[in-house]
Amino acid sequence: MKVGIIGASGYGGLELIRLLHSHPEIKKIELFTSSEEGTVFSHKYSHLMNIIDQPLQKIEHETLANYDVIFSSAPAGVASQLLAPLLGIGPMLIDLSGDFRLKDLSSYEQWYKKTPAPAHAVEQSVYGLTEWNREAIQQAALIANPGCYPTAVLLALLPLVKENLIDVSHLVIDAKSGVSGAGNGLNRMTHYSETNENTAIYKINEHQHIPEIEQAFSMFAQDTPPITFNTHLVPMTRGIIATSYAPVKEGVTEAQLVQCLEEKYAEEPFVRVLHEASKFGTNQVYGSNYCDLHVKVDPRTNRATIVSVIDNLVKGAAGQAIQNMNVQFGFEETFGLTHVPAFI
Amino acid sequence: MKVGIIGASGYGGLELIRLLHSHPEIKKIELFTSSEEGTVFSHKYSHLMNIIDQPLQKIEHETLANYDVIFSSAPAGVASQLLAPLLGIGPMLIDLSGDFRLKDLSSYEQWYKKTPAPAHAVEQSVYGLTEWNREAIQQAALIANPGCYPTAVLLALLPLVKENLIDVSHLVIDAKSGVSGAGNGLNRMTHYSETNENTAIYKINEHQHIPEIEQAFSMFAQDTPPITFNTHLVPMTRGIIATSYAPVKEGVTEAQLVQCLEEKYAEEPFVRVLHEASKFGTNQVYGSNYCDLHVKVDPRTNRATIVSVIDNLVKGAAGQAIQNMNVQFGFEETFGLTHVPAFI
Amino acid sequence: MKVGIIGASGYGGLELIRLLHSHPEIKKIELFTSSEEGTVFSHKYSHLMNIIDQPLQKIEHETLANYDVIFSSAPAGVASQLLAPLLGIGPMLIDLSGDFRLKDLSSYEQWYKKTPAPAHAVEQSVYGLTEWNREAIQQAALIANPGCYPTAVLLALLPLVKENLIDVSHLVIDAKSGVSGAGNGLNRMTHYSETNENTAIYKINEHQHIPEIEQAFSMFAQDTPPITFNTHLVPMTRGIIATSYAPVKEGVTEAQLVQCLEEKYAEEPFVRVLHEASKFGTNQVYGSNYCDLHVKVDPRTNRATIVSVIDNLVKGAAGQAIQNMNVQFGFEETFGLTHVPAFI
Amino acid sequence: MKVGIIGASGYGGLELIRLLHSHPEIKKIELFTSSEEGTVFSHKYSHLMNIIDQPLQKIEHETLANYDVIFSSAPAGVASQLLAPLLGIGPMLIDLSGDFRLKDLSSYEQWYKKTPAPAHAVEQSVYGLTEWNREAIQQAALIANPGCYPTAVLLALLPLVKENLIDVSHLVIDAKSGVSGAGNGLNRMTHYSETNENTAIYKINEHQHIPEIEQAFSMFAQDTPPITFNTHLVPMTRGIIATSYAPVKEGVTEAQLVQCLEEKYAEEPFVRVLHEASKFGTNQVYGSNYCDLHVKVDPRTNRATIVSVIDNLVKGAAGQAIQNMNVQFGFEETFGLTHVPAFI
Repeated sequence: MKVGIIGASGYGGLELIRLLHSHPEIKKIELFTSSEEGTVFSHKYSHLMNIIDQPLQKIEHETLANYDVIFSSAPAGVASQLLAPLLGIGPMLIDLSGDFRLKDLSSYEQWYKKTPAPAHAVEQSVYGLTEWNREAIQQAALIANPGCYPTAVLLALLPLVKENLIDVSHLVIDAKSGVSGAGNGLNRMTHYSETNENTAIYKINEHQHIPEIEQAFSMFAQDTPPITFNTHLVPMTRGIIATSYAPVKEGVTEAQLVQCLEEKYAEEPFVRVLHEASKFGTNQVYGSNYCDLHVKVDPRTNRATIVSVIDNLVKGAAGQAIQNMNVQFGFEETFGLTHVPAFI
Repeated sequence: MKVGIIGASGYGGLELIRLLHSHPEIKKIELFTSSEEGTVFSHKYSHLMNIIDQPLQKIEHETLANYDVIFSSAPAGVASQLLAPLLGIGPMLIDLSGDFRLKDLSSYEQWYKKTPAPAHAVEQSVYGLTEWNREAIQQAALIANPGCYPTAVLLALLPLVKENLIDVSHLVIDAKSGVSGAGNGLNRMTHYSETNENTAIYKINEHQHIPEIEQAFSMFAQDTPPITFNTHLVPMTRGIIATSYAPVKEGVTEAQLVQCLEEKYAEEPFVRVLHEASKFGTNQVYGSNYCDLHVKVDPRTNRATIVSVIDNLVKGAAGQAIQNMNVQFGFEETFGLTHVPAFI
Repeated sequence: MKVGIIGASGYGGLELIRLLHSHPEIKKIELFTSSEEGTVFSHKYSHLMNIIDQPLQKIEHETLANYDVIFSSAPAGVASQLLAPLLGIGPMLIDLSGDFRLKDLSSYEQWYKKTPAPAHAVEQSVYGLTEWNREAIQQAALIANPGCYPTAVLLALLPLVKENLIDVSHLVIDAKSGVSGAGNGLNRMTHYSETNENTAIYKINEHQHIPEIEQAFSMFAQDTPPITFNTHLVPMTRGIIATSYAPVKEGVTEAQLVQCLEEKYAEEPFVRVLHEASKFGTNQVYGSNYCDLHVKVDPRTNRATIVSVIDNLVKGAAGQAIQNMNVQFGFEETFGLTHVPAFI
Repeated sequence: MKVGIIGASGYGGLELIRLLHSHPEIKKIELFTSSEEGTVFSHKYSHLMNIIDQPLQKIEHETLANYDVIFSSAPAGVASQLLAPLLGIGPMLIDLSGDFRLKDLSSYEQWYKKTPAPAHAVEQSVYGLTEWNREAIQQAALIANPGCYPTAVLLALLPLVKENLIDVSHLVIDAKSGVSGAGNGLNRMTHYSETNENTAIYKINEHQHIPEIEQAFSMFAQDTPPITFNTHLVPMTRGIIATSYAPVKEGVTEAQLVQCLEEKYAEEPFVRVLHEASKFGTNQVYGSNYCDLHVKVDPRTNRATIVSVIDNLVKGAAGQAIQNMNVQFGFEETFGLTHVPAFI
């Protein structure tokens, strides 16, 4: 297996390196760059000393054509330009940005406020929500790896929406994320002194993951009305908790919701359904590829509270990307992903 | 003005001391205890050296009868026992616990799982949500100071519920709090290594502030169906952000919601309505008595997102308690409460 | 009193605003800028809504000449250019940067790697370590307000060095600071995801506060050999703890060290000496102008451990600046500085 | 390989589980308890659901005698009582507490203020500082796994002390640790609201790791005078940074110190020596078994600053314990310990 990473300096890239290091089928990783050619990676990131000491290489088609898999952790707007020309030259492409996720190019333009990727590339892309799209992933030339928030939201809600157990016309999703989701770019949102001791809502009703969630509902469950989805930044590095609220359909019980989730994910290695939880938080999946789910129905209101937690950098990015690679190459799906949650 | 504090060792008590120190009408504060008589307070809390160096005194009715105001920061279940016997002996009583808030004693028992306060005391208590109950507060013998979450939620929602601008039958309130709200008691919820780098939901659908919010809706606006309210613990010490979601009533616009809030609070010194906010978070009220509000309507869903932030220890506890004292004694309402938000 | 602030957008400036708001002799503060003229300050920093709503004004000599005091929170290298032309035109100048602190211009150039301020301005500047330089401060046209680290270090060590109780030839100072000390500039050192869950040493043996400490030893106590001083960044916003180690002189006891500190600071409102401390940390001065001191001698090694804590933004910057203004204008030295430490 | 853990509920125990899960020679781990028999471990720690679902078992000699290795994460004072009776019955014993580290029982009593372990057990114990004691570890029946602070300090200083390159009579060690080092016991030191936004010194000159460091100097390098060692708690969960200061011996250069460290550790998989470091912090070893070292000599003072960072739960506890097991059983020393530092 020859594996390359484009945009390794981003946090998705660093996390790919961390996880692939324990993958039994991957012996070597090469790093490619459009701007930092020749930089020895461990000089830039000294935590990788003795682990990744080779220099960053220039992105050249002849070189990359020999690879089995290319991961891209380049940012939205850049990824489409770097990857579209590589489509079909050989390697499986797995993109961690949002550039190939939305099938409707005008929707991309509207929410991302950037030029969309070429239509033919978007057409070929396969949405990499592993537990819901394995068959297509096995054959995909280009994976659009899901966003961090959509991963947490969809794994929790898709079974319930598909089975028509909750009323999506009154669905409200309130998500909270650690700061690493904002990447390694410097800005006021990620400036320590203004982020520490602060929980803040941002991009109210305007987060670009909204159309991604709606598209996936439509693709894997059923068409829904526009959803309400908001995001908060909390003072921690890793983790997403998504709290979703919806009335249950007439006569539906909490037990049915739990059963629906358990049946869907009974054989899944990375989705766990918790029955009891006096406290249910992001640290129970920290550093791991797990998505944990918990659901309660309030008998006073007949409204369900569905909670999901992931590590945004693992199941929400690099981990799911590796899981998709494993699916395509027929590896054990847990290869490279056996990390136990750190909890503390 | 003779001011005493019962339960000063609690975080509400410490915050009362911090704020009252700058109150121009308060020259001296005495501290009372049921268990630590004789302890020099600054030996226990050295940050108060040279500020509060006197010993804790025993709670004795003859002594307390001479005071103008007694604040209690004793925990729920204890406060009712300490304060009920003091009712009518002289001082105005301001209780920071939940013991006198719920007029329905069986509701208290159900949500708090403790023995309720004596009925006559609860009957006399006045709910201390300053901006909504000034007239009653002026005459009150016993103030039931509002809970931290209800303060943030009610200041944001009461005007809209009262004016019938939002559909409360689909109201969802998702709140997030810093850890100091859990007080100074030691438990796993407040153990650093399991709280840091963790955002967690707790007491799903069972938080004791639910009936308090519903009672206040009924008292100041209109009866509502049971509400959905959930709470999360985020890794920071101070601050609450409450994100509320409700469909707007037919034809109601975002501008109307903003105007409704602005009109209600136009003359209020401590409630601010923000128009624009690319990021809206708890640090903009840190350490201060402000409650900041922000509202957006999503044109895709006609659902309003109403966000409020407070410092849970100030406007959500000690600050509002002092504001209530100021109301009763005819002081400037901002006395002792002019602290500028720290932000950083 | 007419008070102006240059560079108010910096964290020193924000903190000046927070503290001056409670100063009984200051009714109005005006903000001046070299680059953001016309910006309404509370639009930039919404936590100041209803507190500082006026626009930033252009720096013009005719205007500034009418002021009593001008504080500058402009960065080193910039402050000297903005302030030198204002020297002598009227207002007392208080500079929070390092530009006027080092009397030896070549030393400034070597440690700051910038062009030094004009020699005549540096000559006139008075080092604003209030407790040690009051007489000169009373008359000063230009105050070089001390650095955050030097304030913590000098208040702890100057009495002991002056009385010759410790062996400065083996003095080692190990300091730790919250991130706000790095200001509001965006860089990797202050990027949340790389700063959270990380304690790091930086600028080993090269911190520009080294010559400032040495100069102050020489000025207020005695000449010393070069000192060892290192600094660490810890994941919190505010606070400095400086841990200093030195052998005690032959026959000197712990009691003598304690007594030396207590005598020096017996009448000082902002320096406290703690006798017992099972845990001694930055939160006991959080948000306040206190500097707390604690000293122990290890009988096994005859080496003293001298610990000091300050809030870097208050006693280490804006608070001490206001204290210096109070000294010059004959106000109570505590005006604007009565904030009780927040602790939680 | 049959592996058991006593005291798995402690943070050392949780970390053993996390790391052993990736050890290629360990298929199953059993957990033993003196007080929680029958509790299903993943009910207590839900992050281990589907990973460790078996119940805790009673500590019984007949059962434990069949094991190859028993790790103990029981606290000091308890570990000696649980492990001493198991000595010689079969399994290799690896104790993470301080109970078997100090060969001088009266020293244990003095610093730990507890009853020491039986003399014969202490005599047989082998100090598990892997890089310095491999030969003895290979044969050991009982490993006294080193303390977290001593591991960081000794790996940095032992080569320099042994080669006589620094003057240990003026050695000062200033260490800073994340809060997980204090374990899962509830107390004020670990209460979130008093630990967050606070860096504090504790146990000044009285930390029980002082005699452990001195004993190891004597054992592996040379006798030294009593050392100065102090510890600080910083608001993060994991990580230790130890900053050590000592004059270099006459004529010794920085290059010689670097070379000494590099030569000693040239073949070591877990010790890395960094040459350049504008910022050197704990996040570069986060979650991994690395100990990173960095040294600078100040030409102004001829004093060396030697800095080391570890993850206190890995190299400072569970990781080193597994490394010692690997040594004894002849496994690759990196088995179970290939985790890449998380950095973010």
